[in-house]
Amino acid sequence: MTGAGWIAVDWGSSHLRAWKMEGARAVADVSSDRGGAHLTPGDFEPALLALIAPWLRSAATLVVACGMVGAREGWAEIPYRPVPCAPLAQVPQRVSARDPRLDMRIVGGLCQASPADILRGEETQIAGFLALNPGFDGVVCLPGTHTKWAHLSAGEVVSFQTFMTGEIFGLLSAQSVLRHTIAPDGWDEDAFVSALDDSLSRPERLAARVFTLRAEAMLNALPPATARARLSGLLIGAELAAARPYWLGQPVAVIGAPAVAAPYVAALTRQGAAPLQAQAAAMTCAGLAAARALITDYAP
Amino acid sequence: MTGAGWIAVDWGSSHLRAWKMEGARAVADVSSDRGGAHLTPGDFEPALLALIAPWLRSAATLVVACGMVGAREGWAEIPYRPVPCAPLAQVPQRVSARDPRLDMRIVGGLCQASPADILRGEETQIAGFLALNPGFDGVVCLPGTHTKWAHLSAGEVVSFQTFMTGEIFGLLSAQSVLRHTIAPDGWDEDAFVSALDDSLSRPERLAARVFTLRAEAMLNALPPATARARLSGLLIGAELAAARPYWLGQPVAVIGAPAVAAPYVAALTRQGAAPLQAQAAAMTCAGLAAARALITDYAP
Repeated sequence: MTGAGWIAVDWGSSHLRAWKMEGARAVADVSSDRGGAHLTPGDFEPALLALIAPWLRSAATLVVACGMVGAREGWAEIPYRPVPCAPLAQVPQRVSARDPRLDMRIVGGLCQASPADILRGEETQIAGFLALNPGFDGVVCLPGTHTKWAHLSAGEVVSFQTFMTGEIFGLLSAQSVLRHTIAPDGWDEDAFVSALDDSLSRPERLAARVFTLRAEAMLNALPPATARARLSGLLIGAELAAARPYWLGQPVAVIGAPAVAAPYVAALTRQGAAPLQAQAAAMTCAGLAAARALITDYAP
Repeated sequence: MTGAGWIAVDWGSSHLRAWKMEGARAVADVSSDRGGAHLTPGDFEPALLALIAPWLRSAATLVVACGMVGAREGWAEIPYRPVPCAPLAQVPQRVSARDPRLDMRIVGGLCQASPADILRGEETQIAGFLALNPGFDGVVCLPGTHTKWAHLSAGEVVSFQTFMTGEIFGLLSAQSVLRHTIAPDGWDEDAFVSALDDSLSRPERLAARVFTLRAEAMLNALPPATARARLSGLLIGAELAAARPYWLGQPVAVIGAPAVAAPYVAALTRQGAAPLQAQAAAMTCAGLAAARALITDYAP
């Protein structure tokens, strides 16, 4: 019954987005800023209803959700599955809802024993990418607050690694002594590239370089947009140096919103990789459709 | 007239401390939390008067201050002097005060053209250390929110470098996704040492290691005090790796409050250095006395 109507939901810590689906096709979408980080477990159902009520029928409608909604602090905790495994290693799990119009299912995340790591939400983007690129064997990079690198082979996630680059950039640029030195937007491509190359070739010196942004602002009036691009280059360079075992000599795909993906694509391209690019939202929607296809106990 | 009474003031971004001096000897001290980061330029004089009024005479009393009080956002901006130079490369500069009981002087900081760097306050600790250890030739490490490493030779600061290790530790442990994973206090020496060695030997992998603290907390119930010590070890290891050209094969002295200095002393000792230790407050007081001795236009 995959042609029947259902609802796909991407519920991260900072965002909530829902698609009205006919089979694997999205026919409408809505979003809000009610990310899971701002909600207590009891808030999830009302927040979802406020967004999707116009799409509900009197009978139960299937809702398939991924992301923080399945975390310990989410609607209900769905366990992690250990890699290596398919990105959708388990059928989305039914969780209870008070409103009888909701037949709620949540996709589980993945974990790795050593080095210890976890992801939740990205498994769905990876599943969507594999659905649209069957047979892909290589590495996907999913940049964001926490960037994930995953090695994919034979339809499975073999290993993965998380970098806090986006969160560290945010903390340093907005809350550290560098906050007066770094513009909230603007860019300087030459400064980005130069810092990237520097950090990639001598990543062990990153700790020594960050404060030079403050010093150059004080001594040489370093422009704040240049400082912003240079900090980004330093941090992404250090990430790429540490992630080199992932991307070196491998087919690479970057899955992300264009603004977030762009510096990673530029950086990988400079290193001789020729990264594919894929839109995060489209991959999530395709991944939720793949998750829906695993569900056999629902007949509208 | 160095035997006459005067007042020494250490005014950083987060603290204010004053000593009542007889020559080079402190006879009383007071402190408050009115650090410069919380003050506008007009707030400095009232904040100082509130602390030291009981020590003032009707005639002008000499006050010698160092630290953020001399920054652009301080009482008055005192220019940086470029290294190489003596730590007290200029006579403390007289700045205006509304209250005639204050004859206010402020010590200037140091700057370095390449790599761009600045310091303000540490020059006084270094001057105090050199006054108490004349002829010292080697490296001083001043751990804190921003740790400074300085190479000293023939009574001059030859070069220096700033690391934001303390501030980054604070941001990651209190404001990032790691905040639920890391205890506000507590320690695990084995975890510290293991993370330190790991980070020192492969500093380029730091970016890949930070999130493992979160993952291990979720998967293996990593104790929060162990996570705290491990994060400290990772960050100090990365700093020591980048600062290796400073400390390797050099006499090293760590100047700091005991709790802040301890992990640096432990880390350097493990690397085969045999660091001297000196108390930051005592060095600051001795340095302000050395700065006071440069002032020839004051006669009480």
